Amino acid sequence: MASDMAGGLPSPADGMSGGGAIGRLVLMPNALDLGSGHVVDLRTQLPDQAIARAAGLRHWVVENAKSARAFLKRVDAVHPLVAPLQEMQIVELPRAAHKGRAAPSGGASPWRALLAPALAGHDLGLLSEAGLPAVADPGSALVADAHAAGVPVEPWSGPSSLMLALAASGLEGQHFVFLGYLPVEAAARAARIRETETQSRRAQQTQIAIETPYRNEALMQALVAQLQPATRLSVSCGLGLPGGWSLTRAVAGWRREPAAFTPGLPAVFSWLAGP
Amino acid sequence: MASDMAGGLPSPADGMSGGGAIGRLVLMPNALDLGSGHVVDLRTQLPDQAIARAAGLRHWVVENAKSARAFLKRVDAVHPLVAPLQEMQIVELPRAAHKGRAAPSGGASPWRALLAPALAGHDLGLLSEAGLPAVADPGSALVADAHAAGVPVEPWSGPSSLMLALAASGLEGQHFVFLGYLPVEAAARAARIRETETQSRRAQQTQIAIETPYRNEALMQALVAQLQPATRLSVSCGLGLPGGWSLTRAVAGWRREPAAFTPGLPAVFSWLAGP
Repeated sequence: MASDMAGGLPSPADGMSGGGAIGRLVLMPNALDLGSGHVVDLRTQLPDQAIARAAGLRHWVVENAKSARAFLKRVDAVHPLVAPLQEMQIVELPRAAHKGRAAPSGGASPWRALLAPALAGHDLGLLSEAGLPAVADPGSALVADAHAAGVPVEPWSGPSSLMLALAASGLEGQHFVFLGYLPVEAAARAARIRETETQSRRAQQTQIAIETPYRNEALMQALVAQLQPATRLSVSCGLGLPGGWSLTRAVAGWRREPAAFTPGLPAVFSWLAGP
Repeated sequence: MASDMAGGLPSPADGMSGGGAIGRLVLMPNALDLGSGHVVDLRTQLPDQAIARAAGLRHWVVENAKSARAFLKRVDAVHPLVAPLQEMQIVELPRAAHKGRAAPSGGASPWRALLAPALAGHDLGLLSEAGLPAVADPGSALVADAHAAGVPVEPWSGPSSLMLALAASGLEGQHFVFLGYLPVEAAARAARIRETETQSRRAQQTQIAIETPYRNEALMQALVAQLQPATRLSVSCGLGLPGGWSLTRAVAGWRREPAAFTPGLPAVFSWLAGP
């Protein structure tokens, strides 16, 4: 049942199919430029061999079929696809899987059927719209099903806006937490921000959150209003894109000089309270 | 003071030096094969354009000079270095920086002098021995100094054993915490494990920890002994390497069938308690 990982080193049989062997679930990163108005060169964000691995897959489970086809066209420009795009089997994750948890141990999972190509011996790609699948993104329930079904999981390195933001922040990288989205309702959000600051101070732990772009300004205002003046707050906007930026200041500094978000670009927010 | 990031798109002046402009601090990922006995192809883990960016840098601050020279030789095999290796300026991070925090706002940092090449207009690479600099690794204090000094920070995508393990685990990827190392002392470690399980259940948050390879077995035994039988526990070993594996089971399953660690290979441990 061990999920042997190619470790980025495709085995000779990779991309092949059929036979008696079980296929792998290949966790394929995507670029970070979705909806940004930019189309970056895939080779700036994905390893060349990951692009080659993607080019060899005929079966995909994806967050969004349209963006997956766009990804495969970009792959094809670097490494020719093993088959024409219209011959690829591209299946979207059920909407429930976007929020879904794995089925309880032994329980039937509604999306285990998606693993059918792997169980039939074909390697199967898992792709989200941006960044790493199953990290701050749908897909983990399918990966859990793969473990339960004995399908080896093969993760590839690629861009993670969270890790880019954390590295660029200069905040504590040895202890951190990803909070996902904070509450939208103002009082609940304020309480949550104060709670995270207490935890950050106690554990010297960087707190990381994301927001939908049109709410970036509102989240930033709440952070600047609720956090202590000496707490360091980092904002990274449009990571991996031309004109992207990362800026870390004490909250007092942000009060004097507010952030200027680029409309439509995703941002990552990180903060660390002093000891 | 905004740290414009190339977003993986080197500007025309990249790799150039001198002039009046300030240089950038380039956060360069390294491969994940340190000490494993394997030397993976860099192109399986790093974007081609990141390798090209590394090839163009003459100034480096690194976790370890010897491993940095080995990295640059591997870079040279893909994209020729801009100058002979012996002409590169390679400076090690002070040992204090390995555990160090940024100096308080306005305070003098003992390693700000390391930024001198950037302040003189040269792009400056930051490299750790494996994976992303400043993430579960030294370097964040230097990045904080760069922000304070107005040196733009340019992070590149690359391999993160934490993110590979999280993606491969099938556990909750929308909420997670990186704990670093757990206490070595048995009673403190047991208490810490129980505390993390409570937090995992409360927040449906994946807990991620690392250990030095020779203690992998001991940590695994402690996790299996302390966590509840239904808690899912994932072990990823030798990520990014041939023979690397990822396996997720309920703790009850690990009690029946213990993990077989590969000696010397780093492992990442992740767990998630049921709601």
